Amino acid sequence: MPVASLSLNDRAWQRADLLAAEPLRYNLHVARLPGGARLIDCGVQVAGGLEAGRQLAEICLSGLGTVSIVPGERQLWAGPAVTVHTDQPVAACLASQYAGWQVTCEKYFAMGSGPMRAAANREPLFKDIGNTEAPQQVVGILETNQLPTAAITGQIAEACRVAPDKVTLLCAPTASLAGTMQVVARSLETALHKLHELKFDLTKIVSGFGVAPLPPIAKDDLDAIGRTNDAILYGGEVTIWVRASDDELATLGPQVPSSSSRDFGEPFGKIFERYSGDFYKIDPFLFSPAVINFVNLTSGKLHRFGQFRPDVLQQWLT
Amino acid sequence: MPVASLSLNDRAWQRADLLAAEPLRYNLHVARLPGGARLIDCGVQVAGGLEAGRQLAEICLSGLGTVSIVPGERQLWAGPAVTVHTDQPVAACLASQYAGWQVTCEKYFAMGSGPMRAAANREPLFKDIGNTEAPQQVVGILETNQLPTAAITGQIAEACRVAPDKVTLLCAPTASLAGTMQVVARSLETALHKLHELKFDLTKIVSGFGVAPLPPIAKDDLDAIGRTNDAILYGGEVTIWVRASDDELATLGPQVPSSSSRDFGEPFGKIFERYSGDFYKIDPFLFSPAVINFVNLTSGKLHRFGQFRPDVLQQWLT
Amino acid sequence: MPVASLSLNDRAWQRADLLAAEPLRYNLHVARLPGGARLIDCGVQVAGGLEAGRQLAEICLSGLGTVSIVPGERQLWAGPAVTVHTDQPVAACLASQYAGWQVTCEKYFAMGSGPMRAAANREPLFKDIGNTEAPQQVVGILETNQLPTAAITGQIAEACRVAPDKVTLLCAPTASLAGTMQVVARSLETALHKLHELKFDLTKIVSGFGVAPLPPIAKDDLDAIGRTNDAILYGGEVTIWVRASDDELATLGPQVPSSSSRDFGEPFGKIFERYSGDFYKIDPFLFSPAVINFVNLTSGKLHRFGQFRPDVLQQWLT
Repeated sequence: MPVASLSLNDRAWQRADLLAAEPLRYNLHVARLPGGARLIDCGVQVAGGLEAGRQLAEICLSGLGTVSIVPGERQLWAGPAVTVHTDQPVAACLASQYAGWQVTCEKYFAMGSGPMRAAANREPLFKDIGNTEAPQQVVGILETNQLPTAAITGQIAEACRVAPDKVTLLCAPTASLAGTMQVVARSLETALHKLHELKFDLTKIVSGFGVAPLPPIAKDDLDAIGRTNDAILYGGEVTIWVRASDDELATLGPQVPSSSSRDFGEPFGKIFERYSGDFYKIDPFLFSPAVINFVNLTSGKLHRFGQFRPDVLQQWLT
Repeated sequence: MPVASLSLNDRAWQRADLLAAEPLRYNLHVARLPGGARLIDCGVQVAGGLEAGRQLAEICLSGLGTVSIVPGERQLWAGPAVTVHTDQPVAACLASQYAGWQVTCEKYFAMGSGPMRAAANREPLFKDIGNTEAPQQVVGILETNQLPTAAITGQIAEACRVAPDKVTLLCAPTASLAGTMQVVARSLETALHKLHELKFDLTKIVSGFGVAPLPPIAKDDLDAIGRTNDAILYGGEVTIWVRASDDELATLGPQVPSSSSRDFGEPFGKIFERYSGDFYKIDPFLFSPAVINFVNLTSGKLHRFGQFRPDVLQQWLT
Repeated sequence: MPVASLSLNDRAWQRADLLAAEPLRYNLHVARLPGGARLIDCGVQVAGGLEAGRQLAEICLSGLGTVSIVPGERQLWAGPAVTVHTDQPVAACLASQYAGWQVTCEKYFAMGSGPMRAAANREPLFKDIGNTEAPQQVVGILETNQLPTAAITGQIAEACRVAPDKVTLLCAPTASLAGTMQVVARSLETALHKLHELKFDLTKIVSGFGVAPLPPIAKDDLDAIGRTNDAILYGGEVTIWVRASDDELATLGPQVPSSSSRDFGEPFGKIFERYSGDFYKIDPFLFSPAVINFVNLTSGKLHRFGQFRPDVLQQWLT
């Protein structure tokens, strides 16, 4: 009997088990917190790595997308790049991967993503996309440089209506190999989120493919947030296959790439500083790939918008 | 004990089981027809997707080749590209992947490929290549916009000398994500088929690698057939490792790439129209990649022929 | 309970089992020598292939790295390229992949690599890197055009302190598809070995990624050794993530790429001839990728050194 839903958290849990089974190989630390939550540290107190980051990204997509490390395009940026593709773009990227949960508790802060969000169902986004679920166990990804405490995992368990020992959290700071990998794997997600902001009907989206250069891992998280965003905003290319009207795409299209934002053209770190480091205060229309291709399955037409800005990426070198 | 043959249909069947186990994830519909044949719809009445297409392509190669979605070369065409490689090129590409079976029944038409052809042994090609087999179960791929009926599966079962419930058919129209993917994964196959047309001794071929841009999915099958062929004819590059004489390769080589055909230079759609849409009436020498590299294992020499024509690919935009 | 070590030979043995299970598919011959050692011929008396070579390379990395065949960058060289990445660079590349064991017996000669070296612990290198082990079974890769005899496998068993039937050897000449693949997958390893020669503290290295073009397979091993080295020396790019000081990297960096060697600029085959074919007599500072990127995790800075030389690769065509 086919399952009735995609079971985002169950899929992510199975994938997390595979990663957690090899802590030595992937330079991880796996621990149980008081209350029983499982913590997989991929970069806070451990080295982690490229492969931990690749798997972290796929877990964050609830196992519904493929993330690869490939040679980058040298005209754009030297070194490797990160690709992502999925045929469940809304479930994988918006119900799971989008970092829509600010996990806070006293002085603790983390950007929360992963399918636990679909269980918690706290964000207005889910009213539009559906894909909520009531799983027995939940998986979350925390972009943070602090390991969560039992108070945090208890909070998450409660919000998700699961027992505390049915929580798996994977953590990595942005300024780590795994953390930078998993953020750069969000090229497609940023395009989808932007389309949602623009009120595009997401049920029209069938599949997506994205690629962005892997930036040099920064020294601290502020710089790392800057570079990972630059990688997507100025070096990311996304292709989305949709069923829409060409008129709608021609009208909407120019608003989708990052170049449509008033903030476009400056390194993200500088923009972030202006907004005192509050990610959620920045012009939401900035967060999108440099270039977006819409393939309209209804008409067979390709619509391409945006521009690469290798000159901004080059500022990483200064 | 090592198996005595590559068991094309058994390999394909195992791979089809894996795909069919996840209809929700891959946007498929799996059904049983009267008589018991299994039908895996990858794009006729369902959305399918990139990954369904990638797996469809590997099933079509009887699991003997690897198909990947990678970033394309931007100088040639924007967006992703499709690679294929195999070390069983004749079994994978000619005995399995080549679309040599026109499946027809009253008004029904499909281009049939996959290892069922090796069981049916109806094409003269098999006299030259061998690789026939008498399996208990068969797998076919139908490039079609109509789902087959029990009459069709019965016909196939009979031709392959298996019970009707031992037939698995996977279907996708050319104008679908999965259909376009699986056709563009034929870059290597077209080179092998052209070499056979040119009477090259196929036992001299050891391994092959191919890549071609993934075109925008067309609105209808006629346009989709045009674009998928353009992708290979004007944007495809194939490398074949052979054991041959350099004289033979120097003589034969210039006849291999698509540029050797009198029809070269025009978008395939226009050529196809001229021949009233009969695929099998077109100059068979056109069907080949834009560029072919022969690595001669006997001499260590590389022979390279053909040319890319990004200008023809750009006509997809008009 | 997490395992206490990476168990290089056990990992490689499991991967070798997977390869050996499919001799027909991968064009291999699997045999038992007198004494019970298992021999997996990937290219001496058999055709082998790209995929046998890809897996051979991953076995040689003790299963701790990922090797892929991807489209190459056409500005550098046409046809496919080979990528490698690992988060256990010292264990995977130096304790396993480095060809530090000259396996000789009367007229027999092979370049020995793989994790059997970590069991034998005969090379001074292991004093610096650790990663030795006392496994129950060992795996070695022999770059050779002669199949080893029971005398050879007995010698290896003795050196590794295992029973003769607990030895698996995989063989391929450089001038074979699998042999050339597995050597070109050494782009990262050459960088690490060079860094060791330069007395860089290898514990500072966290992760690595490398890519190099797959050259045309040469007719004989001398030419193949030339081309595989050219692929890395003049076409290879490696990125290494380290924890170091920027001063150290700025000072050390210019000495790392192949261009720092007095022999740089000439095809490797010519250099090799000068040294009468003794690999170990050549300027050890030549063996390194054309371009190396250091990402310093401590400072967030990128240091890039070296240059591509497509003009030298073009000499393969003459």
